[in-house]
Amino acid sequence: MAPITNARVLFNEYPTGYPEPGKTVILDKSKAIDLENEPLNGGVLVKILALSVDPYLRGMMNKEHHYSNPFQIGESIFGGGISKIIRSENPKFSVGDHIYGIHPFVEYAVLKDLESHRKIDNSEGLPWSVYLGVCGMPGRTAYHGYKEYMQPYGDTIFITTGAGAVGSFLIQLAKLDGLKVIASAGSEEKVKFINECGADVAFNYKTTSTRDVLKEHGPINFYWDHVGGDSLDCALEAAAHFAHFVICGLISGYNGQPQPVKNFGFILYKSLTVNGFIVGNLDAKHGASFLDFVPPKVARGEFKHREDVRRGLEAVGQTLLDVQTGRNEGKAVIVVADD
Amino acid sequence: MAPITNARVLFNEYPTGYPEPGKTVILDKSKAIDLENEPLNGGVLVKILALSVDPYLRGMMNKEHHYSNPFQIGESIFGGGISKIIRSENPKFSVGDHIYGIHPFVEYAVLKDLESHRKIDNSEGLPWSVYLGVCGMPGRTAYHGYKEYMQPYGDTIFITTGAGAVGSFLIQLAKLDGLKVIASAGSEEKVKFINECGADVAFNYKTTSTRDVLKEHGPINFYWDHVGGDSLDCALEAAAHFAHFVICGLISGYNGQPQPVKNFGFILYKSLTVNGFIVGNLDAKHGASFLDFVPPKVARGEFKHREDVRRGLEAVGQTLLDVQTGRNEGKAVIVVADD
Repeated sequence: MAPITNARVLFNEYPTGYPEPGKTVILDKSKAIDLENEPLNGGVLVKILALSVDPYLRGMMNKEHHYSNPFQIGESIFGGGISKIIRSENPKFSVGDHIYGIHPFVEYAVLKDLESHRKIDNSEGLPWSVYLGVCGMPGRTAYHGYKEYMQPYGDTIFITTGAGAVGSFLIQLAKLDGLKVIASAGSEEKVKFINECGADVAFNYKTTSTRDVLKEHGPINFYWDHVGGDSLDCALEAAAHFAHFVICGLISGYNGQPQPVKNFGFILYKSLTVNGFIVGNLDAKHGASFLDFVPPKVARGEFKHREDVRRGLEAVGQTLLDVQTGRNEGKAVIVVADD
Repeated sequence: MAPITNARVLFNEYPTGYPEPGKTVILDKSKAIDLENEPLNGGVLVKILALSVDPYLRGMMNKEHHYSNPFQIGESIFGGGISKIIRSENPKFSVGDHIYGIHPFVEYAVLKDLESHRKIDNSEGLPWSVYLGVCGMPGRTAYHGYKEYMQPYGDTIFITTGAGAVGSFLIQLAKLDGLKVIASAGSEEKVKFINECGADVAFNYKTTSTRDVLKEHGPINFYWDHVGGDSLDCALEAAAHFAHFVICGLISGYNGQPQPVKNFGFILYKSLTVNGFIVGNLDAKHGASFLDFVPPKVARGEFKHREDVRRGLEAVGQTLLDVQTGRNEGKAVIVVADD
């Protein structure tokens, strides 16, 4: 078979503020791949089906970064994805297997290091993209963090970006345990979804003061942060003694200078515990119970979730921006190819 | 016996910055007490022997405070102290007993609520003031926090105010376990004492850059903070992944606007755990083992500690200021009367 084009999304330029479509990343079609003869050297050849566009990717675009493996100029960007194996020299993986893990943002790839990839059976017959959302990393983030940290500190939890992939699932986990849930988002439409997820108090932080809401409905015993900045300062003010804060994201500071935290002192005065949380650290501990619990319930329609599916690698640039500004409506996923 | 003067230190004025001797608190000698006939109503009459002047007292002087029981204008200030019972109507306490707990800054007091006071045997024959320092609340703070939080995160600990009552004891606890200890203070003389306590790296933060020291001797796995501000930001930069931060004090912000925390993001990026720590919360758990371990070792000279003993209630105003500016040399104690 003749070589075919293998489109790739290349990291083109360090953004100074928000990522810019057409500049920060570019679509490159200069490479071709011979699917039958591309050497595997013990690896597997995969066809990428779906890719996840997550807020944390902005951190990979910084020249001064906090990650061990930031994006490199001129190279493909990468992130969570689902692919299907079309050739294999790795005895653990067979042609036709679907795998989840970090993938380059390309159409076809040879993967060699598969230590952290896992096969997905999908016996529930869910769309593959769902394994990038509520059944994937964001779902695991909410689930693992909730299991690990949500000890019985009290009954009121405040969640920012409550309509996001992590937040909306977390609301539902907390409601299963009967907690009082306060959640915020940045549009009326998102607030509506938060309400559908069962939150007791849902509000648009752009039109309603977080401080006022927490004064009325707090104090809070648990805070799950995706935002930082003023939300975090308000939560520190509204925290009950011995409250627990999970810092899962700080998007307010990703695309510019982060706002310093003014109310750090409450950590001392109220004996708070604060945990910076990255899901991978807890996957060994909670990953198996997640798989037992979550995908079957999702398949039965018992967890609400939303996807914002975009088609083709050409959509990546705009989607990277939309996820930073909150213009996505549900888990942002790029469907690269059909199964 | 005729009534005698009962001098009292009254809270006179809310300070806006540092407490001011002669203004923030004043010595009042207008009250008298009849030691034989003062009604006890089931309580005890005590003679105050020694009072502790601690950094946290500044927080009690704020109009907008974080404590449930701030100082009240025109009333005695209060804090940790040692007294001797001279009359008792409480069957749990006898004349001659020495008790430790919160005392008003006066010469004689009737105490009724003795729930949180404890008798001190002092079978070691230590000066009573030592029970306000290494054998008292500061010692307990270091000990309880160390026992509770110093799980094996790694081998390097950074301690601010390393020559203080808490810091200097913490250095010695950490060295007993063979940790690498970095500690800072604000004068050469204090740095000398830190070295005597066994720290591996001791420096004067006023003349040496904390950032540079931590770059050379870090990363740090454990940070014990008494300062906040730039020290905290430097520690966040120098933290190893999964490091543990104990926030025990934030004195850089006590006497003015606290400096916002710029590097909060590292809590997320490095999966840090941060605990606001107030010793009382852990006394039930670690108090008994503290008493078994610490006073005998102090009596045998196996823990270094320093006291800055001032005599008489008239010294309180200046001592309150000195403790905020770091001009005390050792645990600041007011000896009010001899035993």
